[in-house]
Amino acid sequence: MDLLSIEDPSFLRNLSIKELEKLSSDIRKFLVEKLSITGGHIGPNLGVVELTIALHRMFDSPRDKIVWDVGHQTYVHKILTGRAKEFDTLRQYKGLSGFPKRSESEHDVWETGHSSTSLSAAMGMVTARDLRGEKYYVVPVIGDGALTGGMALEALNHIGHEKKNMIVILNDNEMSIAPNVGALHNLLGRIRTAGKYNRAKDEIESLFKKIPAVGNMMASTAERLKDSFKYFLVPGMFFEELGFTYLGPVDGHQFDELFESLKYAKKTEGPVLLHVITKKGKGYYPAESDKTGNWHGTGPYKIETGDFVKPVNSPPSWSKIVSETVRKLAREDSRIVAITPAMTVGSKLEGFQNEFPDRVIDVGIAEQHATTMAAGLAIEGMKPYLTIYSTFLQRAYDQIVHDICRQNLNVFIGIDRAGLVGADGETHQGVFDIAFLRHLPNMVLMMPKDENEAQHMIYTALKYDDGPIAMRFPRGNGLGVPLDEKWQKIPIGSWEVLREGADGAILTFGTTIPMAMKAAQQLEKYGIYVKVINARFIKPLDEQMLKNLLMQNIPIVTVEEAVLQGGFGSAVLEFASVHKFHSAEIIRMGIPDRFIEQGDVKSLQKEVGLTVENITQTMIEQYQNKKKRA
Amino acid sequence: MDLLSIEDPSFLRNLSIKELEKLSSDIRKFLVEKLSITGGHIGPNLGVVELTIALHRMFDSPRDKIVWDVGHQTYVHKILTGRAKEFDTLRQYKGLSGFPKRSESEHDVWETGHSSTSLSAAMGMVTARDLRGEKYYVVPVIGDGALTGGMALEALNHIGHEKKNMIVILNDNEMSIAPNVGALHNLLGRIRTAGKYNRAKDEIESLFKKIPAVGNMMASTAERLKDSFKYFLVPGMFFEELGFTYLGPVDGHQFDELFESLKYAKKTEGPVLLHVITKKGKGYYPAESDKTGNWHGTGPYKIETGDFVKPVNSPPSWSKIVSETVRKLAREDSRIVAITPAMTVGSKLEGFQNEFPDRVIDVGIAEQHATTMAAGLAIEGMKPYLTIYSTFLQRAYDQIVHDICRQNLNVFIGIDRAGLVGADGETHQGVFDIAFLRHLPNMVLMMPKDENEAQHMIYTALKYDDGPIAMRFPRGNGLGVPLDEKWQKIPIGSWEVLREGADGAILTFGTTIPMAMKAAQQLEKYGIYVKVINARFIKPLDEQMLKNLLMQNIPIVTVEEAVLQGGFGSAVLEFASVHKFHSAEIIRMGIPDRFIEQGDVKSLQKEVGLTVENITQTMIEQYQNKKKRA
Repeated sequence: MDLLSIEDPSFLRNLSIKELEKLSSDIRKFLVEKLSITGGHIGPNLGVVELTIALHRMFDSPRDKIVWDVGHQTYVHKILTGRAKEFDTLRQYKGLSGFPKRSESEHDVWETGHSSTSLSAAMGMVTARDLRGEKYYVVPVIGDGALTGGMALEALNHIGHEKKNMIVILNDNEMSIAPNVGALHNLLGRIRTAGKYNRAKDEIESLFKKIPAVGNMMASTAERLKDSFKYFLVPGMFFEELGFTYLGPVDGHQFDELFESLKYAKKTEGPVLLHVITKKGKGYYPAESDKTGNWHGTGPYKIETGDFVKPVNSPPSWSKIVSETVRKLAREDSRIVAITPAMTVGSKLEGFQNEFPDRVIDVGIAEQHATTMAAGLAIEGMKPYLTIYSTFLQRAYDQIVHDICRQNLNVFIGIDRAGLVGADGETHQGVFDIAFLRHLPNMVLMMPKDENEAQHMIYTALKYDDGPIAMRFPRGNGLGVPLDEKWQKIPIGSWEVLREGADGAILTFGTTIPMAMKAAQQLEKYGIYVKVINARFIKPLDEQMLKNLLMQNIPIVTVEEAVLQGGFGSAVLEFASVHKFHSAEIIRMGIPDRFIEQGDVKSLQKEVGLTVENITQTMIEQYQNKKKRA
Repeated sequence: MDLLSIEDPSFLRNLSIKELEKLSSDIRKFLVEKLSITGGHIGPNLGVVELTIALHRMFDSPRDKIVWDVGHQTYVHKILTGRAKEFDTLRQYKGLSGFPKRSESEHDVWETGHSSTSLSAAMGMVTARDLRGEKYYVVPVIGDGALTGGMALEALNHIGHEKKNMIVILNDNEMSIAPNVGALHNLLGRIRTAGKYNRAKDEIESLFKKIPAVGNMMASTAERLKDSFKYFLVPGMFFEELGFTYLGPVDGHQFDELFESLKYAKKTEGPVLLHVITKKGKGYYPAESDKTGNWHGTGPYKIETGDFVKPVNSPPSWSKIVSETVRKLAREDSRIVAITPAMTVGSKLEGFQNEFPDRVIDVGIAEQHATTMAAGLAIEGMKPYLTIYSTFLQRAYDQIVHDICRQNLNVFIGIDRAGLVGADGETHQGVFDIAFLRHLPNMVLMMPKDENEAQHMIYTALKYDDGPIAMRFPRGNGLGVPLDEKWQKIPIGSWEVLREGADGAILTFGTTIPMAMKAAQQLEKYGIYVKVINARFIKPLDEQMLKNLLMQNIPIVTVEEAVLQGGFGSAVLEFASVHKFHSAEIIRMGIPDRFIEQGDVKSLQKEVGLTVENITQTMIEQYQNKKKRA
């Protein structure tokens, strides 16, 4: 059928199972084709084709609320709610979002991007519904990976207690991004093996009849015997113990099973957990057979071969550079242990893991636990390397404050995907970390200008014994600069003069250094000669160098790919105020006070004014104003 | 025995059970007496007397690591590790901490104050131990309340998977601070009722023998039948499912039961969960019979009657003022719903709860879930009032960013215990919230100068429809000012001139306003006349008023009881920079870049320089410097 003509999911009610199967196949073909050009979360979406169709057939969206967890598996949902025609712009600047977006459709009732929020959101929705005496279904759809996030577990505990009507769909594809870890995962594996309770029901019932009367047992014993048989009959006793009615497991690619169980779920009072088994990448061989997690989210690929289309000869990714450097240091220092919350693949820790299987610890989607576990390792004298994407580190703010910084522990935090991240959009921009880390006592925060400096910083961090130290680094590839063979310590809080000039100074670090250097070149054409400072330590500042700059009384422009409030530029303002350089002329450039949507990083930088032209112009103005006043 | 003479817990090994019982009784007497004067966490500590003695007898601290969760139940531990003589200074400035403190004793292996960190810390410790091939026990002690915190659940999932040796003590006193909520709590209740498995073991085994041979069953069915009986025999199947060996429940006040089960736990391979039932307040009638949570932590009390010693005629607490105002507004607006993470008592929501039982939702210790649930309520058009202590709001940072601010939802956040909190010390100071909220897009952040302004702010917040709005308020009691009968909206971002003056301006809000007013008086003696501004909106600033001030080119001093980096003063610096008031002379006063320990608020303010004298002196200097330059 013509997917582009779909306007809303109501048509699904009139289709036969055969027609739905044809639709599923059309959707898969559409996704494989479209994503081969744009890239996107192909694996998760191919896995939920039938499930999404079944949900939209059995529920009346948007009256009924389908609440997607994480949200990267909503492409089928977007097709069924009238957005197929926008897939050419998927994840592009001003294009279709890769996540649910309320501004795109009334069917997107909850926005997300981070994992494990759906159950809490749904609990808010059913509470609102019941307080108002309204009737509709609330259906959170959560993956087995996201289920292990602490917030989801908190929500399970609360939902199971309150007993309100809610239908939780557990989309169990046996993977989060990489294969899952954790006891809950093992448990789900056992349930899958056990199969549906019906299979064994007859056998056990006949057995039950042969047991002698239980009349003279203690009442509590008899009650527990009943529970015991329930445990036998219902494989998801874990969820039953938490107060849910467990249904399943059902095959998430069979419409009849899905319809039957959803029908039953709709009739059931109280919270229901419907356990649906799906296969990531279903229907497209390269994605379906993937064991590595590489087909979770991809760039463009060749449909026939499944080969990824990659720029030729691009330098290695930042994640790889950092992980490999830590790995090399781990060869000499047995105290070094890497911890990742389900990002072994994203953080490129596979090589490290192969070489030191015991020293790369994937804790699953559990940033809080990862962070405090790192603190526990540090308190016993180890050198934990905790690597988390900037946006996900937000989940561990309290653990950084209360466990790491307060106890001043030697944890090295690698902040991956810092700055603008591009296609993942506003839920994933790594722009808050400076503002939420800089105010923490004992914290050292740095960012390298290139991969060679990164090596030295990592060496510095893993030799540092005075407390927490964090290095932020961007998404994407390194610059391809040559690497020093011998590493050396960089003095904590030392900046570097990249370019001299007496008329002004640009203070910046990391990704914005190249544009600052170009701006300095541009400025020469106007007869303005400015210093460019690699302010690689965001905290502590290079107080001596900054004091010298302030004493020269020249215009200072700070540039950062991070939010302006409380950021690096504010640190410079604070320093000037503390040291009473009240006439210092400091202008800050960075991310303004709003959420930044998706798009290629260049477009986003342009949108927020982080450009060579803008830096140049800002400096010219400052310079001329100063001259006028002089 | 003379508790003051105890130096370390090794003496416990030589005592008989009778002697240990005598010791328990001595410790209880000691605690009831000492705390009647100093106040402290009496309930939790009276509940763990035997448990703490048993742990120190059966384990070899500090070689074996006892990791206390939350940490307010470590008084007995402190007595047994040589600190009885310091109890007169408990929770006082420079005195004995109410929480574990590594600087106090080598037996305090992990510092805490926030809940639910012990399992993750312990997981770090056992990982370090095993990587180094060392042998010792790691024994986290966690309450049933703390167990429902998301981080603890994340840790359970990981620990159960990894199968390392760890002995988790579940200290189940059926309460967190107030009585517990949540499905896990219900589950524990069922286990307690079921009793120890031994009780029913004989009955069921004889029954089992009567069941016909299972030879011709499917293998998986037989396997599940075995599990089913295990479920019958082991009450803690929930924990077994997660990969733990469950032991218990045992009576936490019976030494023989404790010793027997700890002995068994020490011999068991893999993670063990020992379920210990204790009674909060055990042995002191007023605390033991408390159903309200009022005896969790107390101020001074009269031993004989259990009456709390309270200052006569003190105004109501801030928590009470705020909750009661919300309650009154809830009478007129059925959309208003209060959410608390286990702080119904602390946040004084009892009255509200009695009047609207469905509209005060206690989610247990689960700040993340509470926050995103509030977002879910808001997205359905409700008006959630989310009330969390400043220090615990740190746990929900990502939920505020990703769920509330990004979706710009109408959640009213009441930030209780903002600023210096006193006796609870460095884990509880509410000094980071401005720095971690101010940089978030869409956030409005305010603080009232007194309870009357608070009323108007709450009215404003609950009428506000443009996104999230937060009001911070301090610990302790209001000022006792008269209350307006009619509430009115305060324009968002409006400040208030409290005092006029042409020579300078003090910008401050909340608790530091009285000292600023006094400083202004003092300054008159020096012939310096300064404005005092009630900068009640921390975000957004009153841009018009601030611009006017900056145009007057007078010295500005900002004063805040919060960390300086990224704080309110920095917002003023940022504003001056953006609007190119480059010669503005702004000095910021607030909390310096280190953690602030316990003590009465006055002493702490003095320590960090937040005093009338210091404000006065700072302004004099600024004024004179300016004059010199002019």
